[in-house]
Amino acid sequence: MALDPVALLERLIACPSVTPAEAGVLDLLETELTALGFAVTRLRFDGDGSYPVDNLFATRGEGGRRLLFAGHTDVVPPGDPALWRSDPFVARHEAGRIHGRGAADMKSGIAAFLAACAALPPEAGTILLAITNDEEADAVNGTDKLLQWMARNGHGFDFAVVGEPSSAEVLGDSIRIGRRGSFSGVVTIAGTQGHVAYPHRANNPLPVLAAIASALAAAPLDAGTAHFPASNLELTSIDVGNPAANVIPAAGRLHFNIRYNDLWTPETLAAWVRDRLAAVPAGGTTVGFEISGVPSRAFLSPLGEDVETLAAAIAARCGRQPDYSTGGGTSDARFVALYGPVVECGLVGASMHRADEHVLVSDLLGLAQIYADFMRRFFAREPA
Amino acid sequence: MALDPVALLERLIACPSVTPAEAGVLDLLETELTALGFAVTRLRFDGDGSYPVDNLFATRGEGGRRLLFAGHTDVVPPGDPALWRSDPFVARHEAGRIHGRGAADMKSGIAAFLAACAALPPEAGTILLAITNDEEADAVNGTDKLLQWMARNGHGFDFAVVGEPSSAEVLGDSIRIGRRGSFSGVVTIAGTQGHVAYPHRANNPLPVLAAIASALAAAPLDAGTAHFPASNLELTSIDVGNPAANVIPAAGRLHFNIRYNDLWTPETLAAWVRDRLAAVPAGGTTVGFEISGVPSRAFLSPLGEDVETLAAAIAARCGRQPDYSTGGGTSDARFVALYGPVVECGLVGASMHRADEHVLVSDLLGLAQIYADFMRRFFAREPA
Repeated sequence: MALDPVALLERLIACPSVTPAEAGVLDLLETELTALGFAVTRLRFDGDGSYPVDNLFATRGEGGRRLLFAGHTDVVPPGDPALWRSDPFVARHEAGRIHGRGAADMKSGIAAFLAACAALPPEAGTILLAITNDEEADAVNGTDKLLQWMARNGHGFDFAVVGEPSSAEVLGDSIRIGRRGSFSGVVTIAGTQGHVAYPHRANNPLPVLAAIASALAAAPLDAGTAHFPASNLELTSIDVGNPAANVIPAAGRLHFNIRYNDLWTPETLAAWVRDRLAAVPAGGTTVGFEISGVPSRAFLSPLGEDVETLAAAIAARCGRQPDYSTGGGTSDARFVALYGPVVECGLVGASMHRADEHVLVSDLLGLAQIYADFMRRFFAREPA
Repeated sequence: MALDPVALLERLIACPSVTPAEAGVLDLLETELTALGFAVTRLRFDGDGSYPVDNLFATRGEGGRRLLFAGHTDVVPPGDPALWRSDPFVARHEAGRIHGRGAADMKSGIAAFLAACAALPPEAGTILLAITNDEEADAVNGTDKLLQWMARNGHGFDFAVVGEPSSAEVLGDSIRIGRRGSFSGVVTIAGTQGHVAYPHRANNPLPVLAAIASALAAAPLDAGTAHFPASNLELTSIDVGNPAANVIPAAGRLHFNIRYNDLWTPETLAAWVRDRLAAVPAGGTTVGFEISGVPSRAFLSPLGEDVETLAAAIAARCGRQPDYSTGGGTSDARFVALYGPVVECGLVGASMHRADEHVLVSDLLGLAQIYADFMRRFFAREPA
């Protein structure tokens, strides 16, 4: 059976699944997957300080090697409608492109993968799908819990592909073999409030805050690794909120974020921050440090034969080997990486999260071919 | 004729003239001053970005030397009523003290001065009063404009006494012969916003902000002068307001205040700040600087014979010479100083702005005696 990824993408875009609203998009996927011979399980996860999220797990085939495809159906909000040339939730064709929210990130990746599945006989191998509707927001009740559920229920995999837009400028020029980690923290410096006319009765925390800000921003974390750039700290906010020009404030807060490579873990980073803080004279102030939220761990997939097979499938379609990238922000691949090797392979992401988000129709068809070619080669290998 | 300063203070406290509400306090003063032979002019000033304010000008006598008494009838809010042992606007006598909002700052100074006027014959000399009901808040339509109006209308003076609480621990231990100036500024550092994962596409303004904060806080302004301590800069707030841990902010602001001595003017301070800013590498950011509000100029009254006369009157009553102080915050004396020599001479200020604000009855009577004695000596001198 054949499946037209363009028609499927149009129908996926028509579901206004602005994160975390499901808006019928998983119902549509369930129908399509069932028609392709998949057994579909819908999973709603909740709790842990976040809203409930709808997720979908699907599997087809038995035995042999096991390939996981992971992705998300939620999209970021369209933003100001006036910036769009047409309705963000009605696919618009123009100059060989399909425009709409989610056209690049990443309803097209899902459409291409389903088209690839349709092109393969069900007996080709075991295919698993882990689709969440909350990648763009909290991601607390999405892929993380879906992968935990899969592990508990014996749904392991040999290799995983995440359908995020991984190409930089043209289809297949890049796949992502890892991601940097993300670590956010807040430093609070508490002194003693007072009147600016009587500084000897107060202890201004802001000179210490400034020294700490300089110490954190200046210290290099590392010089980079084989596949990652140097880890980097950015100060993201400093806030005191003192409206009175005649008052020495009681305290100030400094927020920072570190994007880090495979040399670090959240634990070693926390120790590094504490060392930097301890090196700044506190001048009688009290300096506190807390990690903000849950840090994302860095990961780097093993560069084994399956990655080479994917690169070969891309080269066959695109005429060149993809770069192995670890750039960009974080993605749900960090959750998948805890259970097995994973790469991100998808379309060109330049327009993602923007008005008039779009993909080339030729790229969508090309990605479906790459996925199908890769699966044929992947399933032809013997299980390890 | 005699006037009981205790009874007048009780009636002044009974007017809840929380700045800038007049609450009948100037009507009361007008009645009392008229009975003492003063010609009273009520003046309401408005505009210049502040609320309208009621003020009172009064004059008695003609020819000879001219003494100005300046002060204010407004009081700071009582704050949490639960912190007061009794109604802040009902004078309470206990252990030789009168409690109530304004008891120290500075309805008692006004009561003492009127009692002193009552003790002097009207022909003793020319007495002027400049009383505002907005010293504690904006001070835009108060003493500043009252003194401007006096100058336009030919009401000059040879010497001025401001009745602010100037004593540190016991009555007469200190008078204020000058005040430090106050200069507030805001520095804005603008960089380029971006995603923390792509710092090369952004330019974080916060490392520059931290360096500027350190440069401003660390640089000494001076080592003090004969009558003033060293000038001092305090960082009062740093604010970015970036709630997103994954965003490099576009800009940050740093607020500071300088309390400065007679070595500086607002103009030389602004140049000093610009020099400090120029010394910090801007790293491609745009650094802006603006003065916040209207700086208060520092002033130091000439230590001439009138100051010595006041000190002698204090010594006669209190048994010791007062210290000549320039401590504390700013006061309306800075406006008076533009037109002639001025000192602040009043009660003990320890309880001002606090719950259960109070003065000793004996101090109130003593201050009335000091004012009267000083006026007798002051008017006995020949005009310059």
